[in-house]
Amino acid sequence: MGQILKLDEQAAARYTPDHLVARDFGALTDAVEQTAAALALTATERDRSGGTAWTERQVLRDSGLLKLAVPAAFGGPETPWPTIYKIIRRFAEVDSSLAHLFGFQHLQVASVALFGNPEQKARYLGKTVSENWFWGNATNGLDTRATLVWRDGKDGDAGYYELNGIKSFCSGATGSDMLNITAPRSVDPADRVFLSIPTARDGVNVLDDWDNLGQRQTDSGSVTFDKVWVEAHEVLGPPGTSGTPRATLRTLVSQLILIEIYIGNAQGALLNAWKYTHEQGRPWLTSGVARAIDDPFTQQHYGDLRIALRGAIALAEDAATRLQKAWERGDALTAEERGTLAVAIYETKIAAARVALDITARIFEVMGARATAAKYGFDRYWRNVRVHTLHDSLDYKLKDVGHWVLTGEVPTPSIYS
Amino acid sequence: MGQILKLDEQAAARYTPDHLVARDFGALTDAVEQTAAALALTATERDRSGGTAWTERQVLRDSGLLKLAVPAAFGGPETPWPTIYKIIRRFAEVDSSLAHLFGFQHLQVASVALFGNPEQKARYLGKTVSENWFWGNATNGLDTRATLVWRDGKDGDAGYYELNGIKSFCSGATGSDMLNITAPRSVDPADRVFLSIPTARDGVNVLDDWDNLGQRQTDSGSVTFDKVWVEAHEVLGPPGTSGTPRATLRTLVSQLILIEIYIGNAQGALLNAWKYTHEQGRPWLTSGVARAIDDPFTQQHYGDLRIALRGAIALAEDAATRLQKAWERGDALTAEERGTLAVAIYETKIAAARVALDITARIFEVMGARATAAKYGFDRYWRNVRVHTLHDSLDYKLKDVGHWVLTGEVPTPSIYS
Amino acid sequence: MGQILKLDEQAAARYTPDHLVARDFGALTDAVEQTAAALALTATERDRSGGTAWTERQVLRDSGLLKLAVPAAFGGPETPWPTIYKIIRRFAEVDSSLAHLFGFQHLQVASVALFGNPEQKARYLGKTVSENWFWGNATNGLDTRATLVWRDGKDGDAGYYELNGIKSFCSGATGSDMLNITAPRSVDPADRVFLSIPTARDGVNVLDDWDNLGQRQTDSGSVTFDKVWVEAHEVLGPPGTSGTPRATLRTLVSQLILIEIYIGNAQGALLNAWKYTHEQGRPWLTSGVARAIDDPFTQQHYGDLRIALRGAIALAEDAATRLQKAWERGDALTAEERGTLAVAIYETKIAAARVALDITARIFEVMGARATAAKYGFDRYWRNVRVHTLHDSLDYKLKDVGHWVLTGEVPTPSIYS
Amino acid sequence: MGQILKLDEQAAARYTPDHLVARDFGALTDAVEQTAAALALTATERDRSGGTAWTERQVLRDSGLLKLAVPAAFGGPETPWPTIYKIIRRFAEVDSSLAHLFGFQHLQVASVALFGNPEQKARYLGKTVSENWFWGNATNGLDTRATLVWRDGKDGDAGYYELNGIKSFCSGATGSDMLNITAPRSVDPADRVFLSIPTARDGVNVLDDWDNLGQRQTDSGSVTFDKVWVEAHEVLGPPGTSGTPRATLRTLVSQLILIEIYIGNAQGALLNAWKYTHEQGRPWLTSGVARAIDDPFTQQHYGDLRIALRGAIALAEDAATRLQKAWERGDALTAEERGTLAVAIYETKIAAARVALDITARIFEVMGARATAAKYGFDRYWRNVRVHTLHDSLDYKLKDVGHWVLTGEVPTPSIYS
Repeated sequence: MGQILKLDEQAAARYTPDHLVARDFGALTDAVEQTAAALALTATERDRSGGTAWTERQVLRDSGLLKLAVPAAFGGPETPWPTIYKIIRRFAEVDSSLAHLFGFQHLQVASVALFGNPEQKARYLGKTVSENWFWGNATNGLDTRATLVWRDGKDGDAGYYELNGIKSFCSGATGSDMLNITAPRSVDPADRVFLSIPTARDGVNVLDDWDNLGQRQTDSGSVTFDKVWVEAHEVLGPPGTSGTPRATLRTLVSQLILIEIYIGNAQGALLNAWKYTHEQGRPWLTSGVARAIDDPFTQQHYGDLRIALRGAIALAEDAATRLQKAWERGDALTAEERGTLAVAIYETKIAAARVALDITARIFEVMGARATAAKYGFDRYWRNVRVHTLHDSLDYKLKDVGHWVLTGEVPTPSIYS
Repeated sequence: MGQILKLDEQAAARYTPDHLVARDFGALTDAVEQTAAALALTATERDRSGGTAWTERQVLRDSGLLKLAVPAAFGGPETPWPTIYKIIRRFAEVDSSLAHLFGFQHLQVASVALFGNPEQKARYLGKTVSENWFWGNATNGLDTRATLVWRDGKDGDAGYYELNGIKSFCSGATGSDMLNITAPRSVDPADRVFLSIPTARDGVNVLDDWDNLGQRQTDSGSVTFDKVWVEAHEVLGPPGTSGTPRATLRTLVSQLILIEIYIGNAQGALLNAWKYTHEQGRPWLTSGVARAIDDPFTQQHYGDLRIALRGAIALAEDAATRLQKAWERGDALTAEERGTLAVAIYETKIAAARVALDITARIFEVMGARATAAKYGFDRYWRNVRVHTLHDSLDYKLKDVGHWVLTGEVPTPSIYS
Repeated sequence: MGQILKLDEQAAARYTPDHLVARDFGALTDAVEQTAAALALTATERDRSGGTAWTERQVLRDSGLLKLAVPAAFGGPETPWPTIYKIIRRFAEVDSSLAHLFGFQHLQVASVALFGNPEQKARYLGKTVSENWFWGNATNGLDTRATLVWRDGKDGDAGYYELNGIKSFCSGATGSDMLNITAPRSVDPADRVFLSIPTARDGVNVLDDWDNLGQRQTDSGSVTFDKVWVEAHEVLGPPGTSGTPRATLRTLVSQLILIEIYIGNAQGALLNAWKYTHEQGRPWLTSGVARAIDDPFTQQHYGDLRIALRGAIALAEDAATRLQKAWERGDALTAEERGTLAVAIYETKIAAARVALDITARIFEVMGARATAAKYGFDRYWRNVRVHTLHDSLDYKLKDVGHWVLTGEVPTPSIYS
Repeated sequence: MGQILKLDEQAAARYTPDHLVARDFGALTDAVEQTAAALALTATERDRSGGTAWTERQVLRDSGLLKLAVPAAFGGPETPWPTIYKIIRRFAEVDSSLAHLFGFQHLQVASVALFGNPEQKARYLGKTVSENWFWGNATNGLDTRATLVWRDGKDGDAGYYELNGIKSFCSGATGSDMLNITAPRSVDPADRVFLSIPTARDGVNVLDDWDNLGQRQTDSGSVTFDKVWVEAHEVLGPPGTSGTPRATLRTLVSQLILIEIYIGNAQGALLNAWKYTHEQGRPWLTSGVARAIDDPFTQQHYGDLRIALRGAIALAEDAATRLQKAWERGDALTAEERGTLAVAIYETKIAAARVALDITARIFEVMGARATAAKYGFDRYWRNVRVHTLHDSLDYKLKDVGHWVLTGEVPTPSIYS
């Protein structure tokens, strides 16, 4: 991957005030930082153009980081979740869309690890390592237009499912090797199953219809299914999606990805503002100071932004540590333990969402009018956070936290909770 | 102008909940509402494309509203400032860029009325009415790269100024008939003068270099001057720019335009969210209500947004009324009266800026994720406000208000205060 | 009343920065300002002691201001509501408890004016003027423990009601001449009636059981009724309490009193902080300035406090003007008009409550640690506002505003809405 | 200590929703919880009365917890700072004043440990354990009215210092065994020294002049010194107060005590509100729910309060862990390390102060008007926090954080930084 960037460009892309951010990912540091640098190079332009980031998707493939979440039992590095989340945050700092794709890669891996039977895990996770599979999803739970019908086999054949319909918000489907999909089984509509098939399978058509005000390169468009053949063994499980508290960790893995996207954007916004203030900032006419960095109000703004960010990070890292513990509990995880973790993640999500919306909007106040030139693209942080914080209702998450505070009753697991 | 819109399109563009907003501009109501409807039609698309809104600039010319600020003594309607500001707000609701151009038209007219001698006022303001002049500006006070050098006449000729250099942030210069320009006189560099010349004059070159994250069609790019001939009588004055408290009202006229741009965007954001919630809003899964409008949290959000908006409007309308009174005081206006008005306008600006930033960011929380599709362009309100609230430092305005609270000392008039 | 204060004490009590607050109540200015000065003298001490402010109640009686709301038709000055509210705010600035009693005096007068029949109005309002009656109330609508039973007259006597039970939160009952009371009629429990009787009537017992963290001298304790004789003609009406939109203005008169209590406390807090900063403020060690008033952060705080206060006042004065117009509409007032006014008052109440809570808490940040000495009593503003803003649910008022924004449906009139 | 409380009273005082707060202090749990229960019993009454809490000071003495910070080398338990801070928070939950005295006990112990020479540490810290000394302070750095003059010994005597003057804000002096005092040495006024003497020494007079709106039993009044004899060896050092980065940890130990007082009050406020809502809360008339805890807005409020509190706690616990590490570094601690820790503590202080002010004010919104009865004393949390957050300027702490963000330069150590 080293060829992608010349060294001085890398230096620029990695420009960071050391006292503010640690760039330490252990043995993964080089891979993470080189990938981040590569993503950073053209992130502003790509935010403007939207569409699919083919080159940068390839950068992610080449990074060797797609397999991080694969358990050692299946040949993966079994990187702890706190580290994976820190990497997602790092990427979100420079390229929120690709960070999303990267984060959802691990969500798909986690889905297989949680829902699959031993044989499925061995197959899908093993190949994620050996084939360096990039996973996409078509699992939007609010979209019920895709259906799965069982077709009996003829002449002694085994039979199969036929998948038809459409799914929206299919982040990462474009250019993926494998696709996780949710659909109700016709034999029991209430039984929504989770299946994994190659994206290239006949009848799967990934549309290029994503054009949003933020997260513009997440390829979160629609996927259509036209008589897609699905083998019985491609339906994950048992245990499948809802058997155990452990299985419902999937939603929490997902929610924490969103959180790190918020925080990464906030951090990226703050660091870029920092750079701009240093390099191009001008003190206000009547400030009486010679340098923008000496303005007392600018200093207070930076103090505020920093404090807010640190608070969100503290909660997020605590949540990731708790998630890791829950993950390690395996099937012993109780509903109560899972629920308490869920509340901690809700709390973190609400705090992080607010902080990220605030920071990404306020950075302009320490940069000034000239920083609004389109060439900088400094509004992309806010747009990314604005879009992503609407993924599911924060109002109802807040209500759920309050309900728990008042009653001790944990939230009911669902695709959003 | 009636031809521009078909009637049903007009109806759609004017779609407004009556209990929330009055659309009453007296005798001007039809002209205002038809213009607003025309601007609304393509505002989202034009925000995306940026560049110059030639068609909509023509809509403004055709509206008959460019002359509103011209005093009756010079053949104008002498529309009171509060009405002019309400119209700016109305236009900002649907098209913040064109509202800016429209507002700055009146600022240029006010500049001539305040700085010009009787002959200049008669000439420039008279022709604003008779020729329906559209004014632009090149008066950015922080940009000192344009210079004015006196050239003595030869052979008994009268002599002239030669204008050279460049000015940035020249809103409305593109496509204008006349241009207000500020530059220091070489004979006395501290003596920054204000001059009015035709935009078409030889050596004036309006660049197409404006590309910002908001206010994308304000044509606020650069203008270059290459040996531009300026007649002595084209330099406004006496009194010129700084003779009297009255002359310094110009800054306040300008600041109140900014305020109405903020409020107009906030109002536009709120009304469009309202429409979206009604037409496409979906209640959250666990809300227990059938319609989005019945969600208690959504109701509280709307309550909040409304209250914030009303507060800003109350202050803005009070400020406009005070400005009108100061305007009518003419040369009798004292420095103290002018200063007290300035403080009231600062207070309003700070309040309106905060409210507008908040409302334009929060509307998404009452609409949900699907409202972030690029086709709606609902982020433009925030981007417009974000850009415009950086015009001059709100931190120092706030400090100035506090200084006045503590000491009773009014701010020193300047190009920003 | 002039004897109560020596002149220099009056001067101190009226100490006000002229550029911040106007002390103009027209012909009432002297009476208002002398009363305010008298209340100010011992307000801090009385906040500590709690109990009944007998002396200051007498100051209010002596002020000649108890009759302000009495219509001219009944011999009163028929002072417009906006003026009355400004006076309440003025008193709340120095003594929030007495301002409450003063405000509720006018609420009782308004109750008679709205609910009484012509004979009752002539009698009760006439004597309010001629006897300088001070009114109290026992009308807490959430407390249903008082009952009214009809006793048939014997031997051709007219019959009467017997009132028994208890009422809580009876502001101003102590030391009052007359008492407004609400109770259900036994013949029809849903028919809650409003009656006016002398406080001195046999069986009425005003308890001294009010001890709250704020509004400590509002005498808002309990009143017990033990076989109290109530004449049929002492039950107000027709129209009584719920006949017409006009009758339901009472709640709005009441809500606007609360609003002015909030704002008055905020204004008092700000003005006292101002005085303290000037007289005793010290700049922080590392501020680099010689005077507290030159500290840039202190200046910003004052700017913030002022802007917030002005916003609340602008809404409150607009609401009072609208209330006056509705009042003048008389029986022609429609439910829609009344409802729209109610929404405007809700909006104002929410804004004012937030502003007042914020200002009264933040003043300490511009004064510093030494300002927390108990002798100053600077926390009383916050305590007063904290208590009073809980009078009825702001959450549900906010929801009601949002419901109206979304649907245009005005709130249903009730004792709180 | 067990005698002080009957068991059922203890139960009541320790009433805590388990899912919200852990009551685990390892081996100290019983001592901590019994002490907390004893403090809780009369905290409301004592807040009202103010003055010295003689009984509860004795409870602290009897708890065995006064020696926690004494290093093992001097016979103490050398409890890690994070545990000490958690105990301070626990006490602040129920009795903010006594928590302050308890926290400052450890600050005095730390002062001796940091400033004293080996002989002084052995003597003072040894006796703190063996004599169960309770320490007070007279070290207010802004008060320079106490002076230390060297008196040469006569006839070969050793000479001594004479201490005269007064100190304000001497928390914990009343009833203390030992007193830490700061004063400039006459031989070099810039050389402010730190000395430790018995409170009972001749000429030391602890005044009972503390009457504040919050922290009412911290005995933070004045101490006068009238020709007090101070031995040379009672002046701490070397190293004394400013020799090394390690010595300047004292300020950080102190700042973190303040932080835990804020958080403890916030937690106490939240838990008491919780109890009140459960036991006495009533749903609003139009809420449509039967129990206060089912109100959606109440739930959201609780969610908000909880999230804010958790964020502050996360930062505080991180800061305490960092402090412990710095403490363990001993003399190897560098100025840079100390400075980075200082910034982390500033950030935490600002965040905690804001959170605590907000929570302690907002609890009323989930309890309603009846919770403002004086008997509950629920305003004491806010008053305590309001007073304590003014200890030193948060504005300048925020500026310092921003300065560090922008430049990487750590704050200069001082008595407040």
